[in-house]
Amino acid sequence: MTAPAQSTRLDSAGGEEVCPFFHEAVELLGKRWTGAIVQALLVAPRRFSEISPAVPQISDRLLSMRLRELEAEGIVDRQVLNGAPFRVEYALTPKGRALEPAVCALGTWAREWLTRPS
Amino acid sequence: MTAPAQSTRLDSAGGEEVCPFFHEAVELLGKRWTGAIVQALLVAPRRFSEISPAVPQISDRLLSMRLRELEAEGIVDRQVLNGAPFRVEYALTPKGRALEPAVCALGTWAREWLTRPS
Repeated sequence: MTAPAQSTRLDSAGGEEVCPFFHEAVELLGKRWTGAIVQALLVAPRRFSEISPAVPQISDRLLSMRLRELEAEGIVDRQVLNGAPFRVEYALTPKGRALEPAVCALGTWAREWLTRPS
Repeated sequence: MTAPAQSTRLDSAGGEEVCPFFHEAVELLGKRWTGAIVQALLVAPRRFSEISPAVPQISDRLLSMRLRELEAEGIVDRQVLNGAPFRVEYALTPKGRALEPAVCALGTWAREWLTRPS
């Protein structure tokens, strides 16, 4: 028996085994609040105090930790802008902005399927 | 200052606040190994013993738990097929198959950005 035609669209699975890079990506984005932070920064670069209202349930401590993790992953860039007083903004790097199609596709699925009464 | 043009593509954020349904979706798919299980089932319906090799690091106990969670979410359907011996297969429901664009987009991002030396 051959696999359904759709299997050709999932070559990322590397044959039978799930692609380890896909797994790494889903674990990274799926870490509590990380996806929401990335979604908030896809709209525009933001100051710390502007991210908090976009992700209301997160504590400042956890938001700070998640931003440092995203910096370490090369997804977020912390930018110190000149001026008095100086401003710190968090912006997505090209690697971070490249997540937009995945974030949008998941948002589309969520609106379509999670808003229905089960 | 107006937001960059790309913000219009992210209306799911509901203005300033991240869409709670997006957050729910990312938490659901991001649960340890859940994304990998969904990716494996997007290829074809599979028996329990066929999912394990696709997600090699997962224990049978955790795989069983994740499949029950996905059933409860209406994403996976457990099908008992007639025959001797009878077979049990796990297949994605329409809600589960609808995750394919999001899973593929994240897979594309992972191949593009996580396979580079940092």
